[in-house]
Parts: sequence; C-alpha cells; structure tokens
Amino acid sequence: MKLLVIGGSDAGISAALRARELDRNVEVSVLLADDFPNYSICGLPFFLSGETPDWHSLAHRTEFDGIDIRRGHRATRIMAASKTVDVDARKAGSLTFSYDKLVIGTGAGPAEPPIAGWQSPGVFLLHTMNDSFAVHDYLEKAKPRRAVIVGAGYIGLEMADALTHRGIDVTVACRPVTVLSAVDAEFGRAVAGELQGHGVKVCTSVEVHRITRNENHLHVSGSNHFDQDCEMVLIAVGVKPNAALGADAGLDTGAKGALVVNRRMETKLPDIYIAGDCAETYHRVLNRNTYLPLGTTAHKQGRVAAENALGGTREFAGSLGTQVVKVFNLIVARTGLRHDEATTESFVPFTNESLINDHKAYYPGAPQLQARVTGDLGSGRLLGAQFIGAWGAEVSKRLDVFATARFHGMTVDQISDFDLSYTPPLSSPWDPVQMACQAWCAKVNTVIQENQNV
Amino acid sequence: MKLLVIGGSDAGISAALRARELDRNVEVSVLLADDFPNYSICGLPFFLSGETPDWHSLAHRTEFDGIDIRRGHRATRIMAASKTVDVDARKAGSLTFSYDKLVIGTGAGPAEPPIAGWQSPGVFLLHTMNDSFAVHDYLEKAKPRRAVIVGAGYIGLEMADALTHRGIDVTVACRPVTVLSAVDAEFGRAVAGELQGHGVKVCTSVEVHRITRNENHLHVSGSNHFDQDCEMVLIAVGVKPNAALGADAGLDTGAKGALVVNRRMETKLPDIYIAGDCAETYHRVLNRNTYLPLGTTAHKQGRVAAENALGGTREFAGSLGTQVVKVFNLIVARTGLRHDEATTESFVPFTNESLINDHKAYYPGAPQLQARVTGDLGSGRLLGAQFIGAWGAEVSKRLDVFATARFHGMTVDQISDFDLSYTPPLSSPWDPVQMACQAWCAKVNTVIQENQNV
Repeated sequence: MKLLVIGGSDAGISAALRARELDRNVEVSVLLADDFPNYSICGLPFFLSGETPDWHSLAHRTEFDGIDIRRGHRATRIMAASKTVDVDARKAGSLTFSYDKLVIGTGAGPAEPPIAGWQSPGVFLLHTMNDSFAVHDYLEKAKPRRAVIVGAGYIGLEMADALTHRGIDVTVACRPVTVLSAVDAEFGRAVAGELQGHGVKVCTSVEVHRITRNENHLHVSGSNHFDQDCEMVLIAVGVKPNAALGADAGLDTGAKGALVVNRRMETKLPDIYIAGDCAETYHRVLNRNTYLPLGTTAHKQGRVAAENALGGTREFAGSLGTQVVKVFNLIVARTGLRHDEATTESFVPFTNESLINDHKAYYPGAPQLQARVTGDLGSGRLLGAQFIGAWGAEVSKRLDVFATARFHGMTVDQISDFDLSYTPPLSSPWDPVQMACQAWCAKVNTVIQENQNV
Repeated sequence: MKLLVIGGSDAGISAALRARELDRNVEVSVLLADDFPNYSICGLPFFLSGETPDWHSLAHRTEFDGIDIRRGHRATRIMAASKTVDVDARKAGSLTFSYDKLVIGTGAGPAEPPIAGWQSPGVFLLHTMNDSFAVHDYLEKAKPRRAVIVGAGYIGLEMADALTHRGIDVTVACRPVTVLSAVDAEFGRAVAGELQGHGVKVCTSVEVHRITRNENHLHVSGSNHFDQDCEMVLIAVGVKPNAALGADAGLDTGAKGALVVNRRMETKLPDIYIAGDCAETYHRVLNRNTYLPLGTTAHKQGRVAAENALGGTREFAGSLGTQVVKVFNLIVARTGLRHDEATTESFVPFTNESLINDHKAYYPGAPQLQARVTGDLGSGRLLGAQFIGAWGAEVSKRLDVFATARFHGMTVDQISDFDLSYTPPLSSPWDPVQMACQAWCAKVNTVIQENQNV
C-alpha cells in the first residue's frame, strides 16, 4: 500500500509517522515544497529572539522512521481519477507520483495585508523557515533600531517579545481595541500592560494603511493618527488556508476558504484525506466545522487521517480552540469560547473573573492568577475559560484542566468534583481552577437571586 | 435550622461554609477541640522549615461568614435519639448542643508507633498545630544537630526537606524497600536520589524497634543493622481515623476502622453526616469505599455533606488518590492506582515509563519529566499515572490532566484527543501527558505482537 502525503509540516509528518507506526508495510512518501520537514514554525520567534541560536534545533525530529521524505517537491496537481500527483521537483524537473491513499496537508500561508507598500525591503511576513531566514539576515545585517509589528495576535506578540529581547524598540499596532483578541478585552489590557512594562509601545484601534520607504528608514502610517518611523516592519495579521491544490482537484471549500472535510478527515473524493491548516476544523463546543489553524490540531488530524487511510474509523474529537502564549513573563491561555463568541452562538453566557493565588500564600512566592470562567446560564455547562498568570505558575496546564472538563461537556459546578493534586507549594486544597468555578457558581446564584428580588 | 459540625479542620469548616453559602438562614456552629479552626495541617513542614515564619498564616481563612466557631469545645458524646451532643468546654465545663443536622468531621490522628521508647522527650509525632508548636519549640531550644525521621511517606519526606533546610543532618528510616511507597519503586528510588543529593541519609527496609535516651542524645535502632544517634526523632508512620465518637453513637466502622458512610455522606442514623479523615472514602477507580485520608477529599466531602444536610442530593464523586509532594526540587505526583494496586484489584495492568521533555528542547531550560502510565490491558482504560519532574515543570497540573481523564474513565488512547495548550516554552504540540499515553499504546502493541509471534 502506498500512502502519499502532500506537505511536510505538522499534519503531513504526523500522518506519515502514524501510518508507519500502525503498519510497517505501508510505503509512505512525503512531498515537501521546501527543505525543512517538520520544523516547529511556532519556534520561529525564539530563533529570531536569539534564545534558540541554532535554527536546526527547531526540527521536531530528524529521524523519519523509514518515510521517504522528498524535499523540494512541490505538488502542482492532484488527479483523483488516476490517483496520481504531479510534482515540480526543481532541478529534477516534473515528476508524477501515484498513490493508493493520499493525505493533503498543505497548511496555511500569511494573509496578504491590505497595506500599501507591504512588499518594500525591510517589511516581512513570517510564516515559513525561509521567511525567518530573511528576517534573521535583516536583523543581523541592517541592525534595525526600531521595529513596527502590525498585528497583535500570538505571533505578533511573541515577536514583540523577541525583538525587545534583541534590544530593538518595538511598536505594536493592531486593529482591535485590545491586543490578543483571542482573549477577552479585560485580559487583552493586562497583556498590553505587560508589553508596556517591557518598553513596547502599544497602539490599538489602528488600521495600518501604508508603509513608505524613506532614505534610511521606513514610515508606517494608519488610522487613529498612527505615524511611526522604524527600520523594520513585521506583518502578522492572520493566515489563510493553502487550499488551491485541493480545490483544483475538485474538493469543496468552506469556512474561510478552507477545504471541506469530515471528522474522519475524509473528503468527497475517495482515498483522499485532508489534515491541518488547509482544512476546516471540527469545533467540539460549536459542534460544526470552523477555521481554526493550530499546530496541536494539525498533529491530531494528521494522526486521524492516517489511521483512517489505513482502514480505521477514528473520528477527530474536535478542537476547543485551546491556546497559550508567553509574553515576557506573563502566560495567557484560553480554551473553549470567549464570552462574545458564546453570545454570537446563541448560548446565554455568564462570565466571572476571579483573582486567586497560584498556591497557598503562606508558602513563599505565590503569584496571583486571574481566571475568567464562561458558562452557559441555561445548562450550567462550561463554555470556556481563560487564565493569566506569571510564568512558572502552572497556568498552562491549569487551563488544560478546564479544557478536559469542556471536552467532556461538564458543568462549571461539576469541576469541583475533580480530584486534583495539592501540596502547599503548588496549589490549594481546592485548585485555583475549582475556586474559579465555585466563584462562578456563587456569582450566578447571587445574580439570579437579585433578579428574583427585582 | 441548626447545623452542628463536630471538627473545625478541612471537612468541618468546608461543610459549615457551604451551608452558609447555600442558605443564609441556617444557623451553623462548629465545635473545635483545639484553638485552630481550619489551619492548613499540610503547611506544618513549611512552618517548621522556617519558610513560613508565622504560623498564623497557616490558617486557610480567618473570616467564617457568620459561623459560630467554638474553640476548645471537645465533643464527648453524640445522642442521636435526642439530637444532642455533649461537649467538654474546658473552663466553661460541660455543655450540651442540640442540632437538626449533624456533620461529624473528627479527622484522623497519628497511628501509635510499635516502637519502644517513642514517648521519650525529643521524640515527636506530627499531626496537630500543638504537635507542631512542640517540635518548633524543641528545634529552637534544643537545637538538634541530627534528626531521625521514621517513615518515608509524604510528611516524612517533607520533614526531611524541612529539617535539612534548617541545617540539621537528617536520616530517614522506612520499612518499605523504597521511600514514598505511594508511587512505584522506580520513582521511589528517584526520590531517594533527590534526598541523598541534598545530604539526607536514606535507610530503607528498616523496621525501627527502639528509641533509647542517653545522656545527651537519642539512639534509634531497628532491623537491617539500623543504629543511629541523634538529638531528635520524628515519627510519621501513618494515621488512623478518629472514629470513636461516631462509633460510640452507634455508627458502623469499616475500612481501617473508619466510619462507614455512603456517597451522600449519610450514615445509618438520620440527620447525621460524616466527612473527611474519620470516614471511609469512596474510591472512583475501585468503585467501593476504602480509607484514604486527604485534605482535598475532606474539603469535597464536607461540601457534599452540607449540601445534603440542607436537602440536596449530591454524591461525592470519589477519590482517585491524587497526590503530589515537593521533595527539595523534585515534584512527585500520582493519581489512580499504582501497578501493584491494580494487580491486587484484579485488573490486568500494564505500565510503561517514558522520559519526556517538559517543553520543546530548543527553548532554553527544558527539564525532563518521567511519566509512568498504568492502563488495563483488557479495556485499554487508564488506571493510574505518576509523574516525576523538576519544580517549575508543571508536573502537578500535568498529573491533573491524567486525573481528569481517569475521572471520566477514558482509555489511554483517548487522552490524545484532548485539546491541550501548547507554546514552545511550556509544552509540545503533543503534551508530555499525551506522549506518555502514545508511548504506552505503542508499547502495548509491541508486546501483543511479540506474544502473537511466540
């Protein structure tokens, strides 16, 4: 059996490895457009900050368990009828690969920004290893003193941290009223405070319109009187699925132009599976497909696709949109739906914010965590949760306790039933997760009683 | 409605607070034998180490929300027929309290050690605040240079850390072949290494028989040629339930002499509930009662008891035996069943140990975690998990992800479906929890294939 995988990043390699794990007799080939199989794209900010000096170490792995990895092989056409794929293999010319089963994992690319002058020298998008080499080269040679980062999502903020770490004066400009719109505005403001505390200038409600190149610097201008000189601009305003190859083969596109796929990662074409950022994602809270490109999801989907390509019947359990980012010394994490997302989805959300010690205050060094719990007033179910806290306070894995609860559709109240670990240097007899849930329940009861009394 | 609570530690205070939270009209009184309502007994080692200088800060709380807290009121007799409780109130003499609903939370005390001379001066058991004052006083005045700790459970090891922190030479002697028998022997040996690395002498397979007092020191002797001079002995060889008060009132005793209780924390006597270390504990994996005294459980049971005393129908969801301890810079955590426990319980356990980076190795400072996953070969279900890793590596809350999975009776394989948080400084696209589960699944498959080939 020949399994062909298009794409050598998280989804593709995950599929290839899983196939080999399940059946040593499957011949697995991976077509890789560039030269960097299974590199950790999430690690690029740390390479560019200097914290990860050698980019080679960004490889998730360098051993591929008998998989035929074809670097520099760009798939140009899928012919489902003949079960073949045309490939542009650079110097090796045009090739054709045949398959019994095909997994498409072509990923996503940066959205083209609606900014005049974005293709000027000194202006960068950051998505691939080659993008990052270009940025690295520029940092080393042009030695920019000032940088403007357009966009305040995960990558924008990690790059703000990274460039500050290099001693560059950083300005972040973003369209929303707060940075990091993946979390509620209350937490976005806390993140802005952390950025400002480390010298980053934060400009929100700014639509960047234009980048012009003057003699020895760049000028970035936009709405809300935004005018900033700098030597470097980094644009991180979101991604779009690389869906063209699949679409040209006759596959449907759906949310945000991503390829349509079911929970078995099957498509409408026989023996063609899709995984990762080029495809729609089943959302476990919404119970429908959406577009939510994340490395964690790509890994899972690749695995599911491979299992099913080899005759399995596994379903992708779904994304909860769980995410975490480190911005300087602050950890910000979320899972499930934000309050405003839940409202849009016709839940009746109620959100409560709590301030809780990471561990017993009598043991030294107990930082405070802020938790926001969003539950549905109708069912009492947890819809989502967000945490902010100091690096080292187990913020991320605490958030994961919420994620597991949401995975199982638990009510906020039921989370107090979890038997979680406790020792005074690390937690409290009720973990902060549970204290946040109890505070939510108490607040909801108070609000209900107040409404009854009115 | 009058709710009377006997016992002012975790279970009792948790019950009292929950009752007040649910109904402001309930009159709640708590009878407290000593003078320390709701002190964190788990914090005593940190008071004695000097890390928590002021013992007052060990109070979980000092505000009790309108609860009538009666310090120095020792309940001596429960008369279920008349719904009254006799109390020895020290100088105030004998009193009688009536109740509509009663919660018994009398806790546990240290097991009397089978060691000759254990009542000598300089020899201590550690369970109550007063015990800890006696130890503190001795440390300050007698200034012991050498201490022997008998018992290598959680408290024994925390005290080994605490006394080392004070500059005392510590020897730990325990009966099992490895320390910390709450975890598998492989991890017990790792903990012994951590102790030895900090100068603690570890003597396992030792039954301590005798403590004799010489002129200016104590001599501790036991099996396996154990002979050790010291100026202080701390005995921490387990606890037994304070069940006499309940038993005298006609309640049944079961596992380890603990009071029998159902999952609603009800007893066979009407309007009498029990919670905490004096009672049996419903174990969620075993699906029966056992004796497993833990502060986390006591809090939960107190809450459930109060809800039901006020007319609710909540069930205690059960303990998984989740525990964590910090020993110097090592965090050791467990949930569910150990391999040997699972064998005894007629599961067919398989255990696999993995060594996994806490986070992506390319980001600086990634310590390694050791995970042991125990699953049932018949059902594929997770039975238990153990983690060892460096302080700061989110070991404890990672273990909690296992605990939530076990709470829901998931298979080891299903844990890879969790959407957990990832950023390179904190995790990997598959969290170490999931990598440990995937390693378990792969190992099981290998073993099955090998057996088929034989």
